[in-house]
Amino acid sequence: MDKVNLKQKLDSFSDTWGPKIVGRLNGQCVKVVKFEGEYVWHHHENEDELFLVLRGRMAIHLRDRVIELDEGEFFIVPRGVEHKPVADGLAHVLLFEPDTTRNTGNVDHAYTIEPGDLEAI
Amino acid sequence: MDKVNLKQKLDSFSDTWGPKIVGRLNGQCVKVVKFEGEYVWHHHENEDELFLVLRGRMAIHLRDRVIELDEGEFFIVPRGVEHKPVADGLAHVLLFEPDTTRNTGNVDHAYTIEPGDLEAI
Repeated sequence: MDKVNLKQKLDSFSDTWGPKIVGRLNGQCVKVVKFEGEYVWHHHENEDELFLVLRGRMAIHLRDRVIELDEGEFFIVPRGVEHKPVADGLAHVLLFEPDTTRNTGNVDHAYTIEPGDLEAI
Repeated sequence: MDKVNLKQKLDSFSDTWGPKIVGRLNGQCVKVVKFEGEYVWHHHENEDELFLVLRGRMAIHLRDRVIELDEGEFFIVPRGVEHKPVADGLAHVLLFEPDTTRNTGNVDHAYTIEPGDLEAI
């Protein structure tokens, strides 16, 4: 039951594509992550996923369009929808999603971290 | 399935203490609200509630301490914990909480808006 400063949390690590848990409520997680480059196409069978850009910019590629997100913008990817996050530069991103969400969804990849192995910072 | 610009949403209304729904996922709502002044003591029996300050500053009074929140800081009030939001100036705040959350929790008050009556913007 302490407050969380998002900038401090994001300044505390430098790796990309590895979400860190910064809060838990109602069976959901608040995570922060740094994106740079291109992620892997995947979907989450049972989880909707919110991406809120805190710094920089990113794009969420869907199969039929691309959502460009600037600072202070969010997008919710509905469950079952294939998506691929892409960031040309470094982007700081907040994620809201259920505890059960696997970062690469249905895909096994070098980036995969099982939900139970995610670091809380 | 459109992106949401938080600043645009917050610029689109001026009333205080009336949360507006800007996103829904996994049985949860993302809301934005303007705080100014002092709210009412209340608790939520079954819902944890996240307050993230987007602009300005606010305090969350608990019965045993006060949590001061600046821009980019959040606090999660666990279910059952009495709290009173206070903002000396105007604060723009993002809320993340279940669909079922009643803004004044267990208390009936002039500020009360039933969850089904909340405006989506």
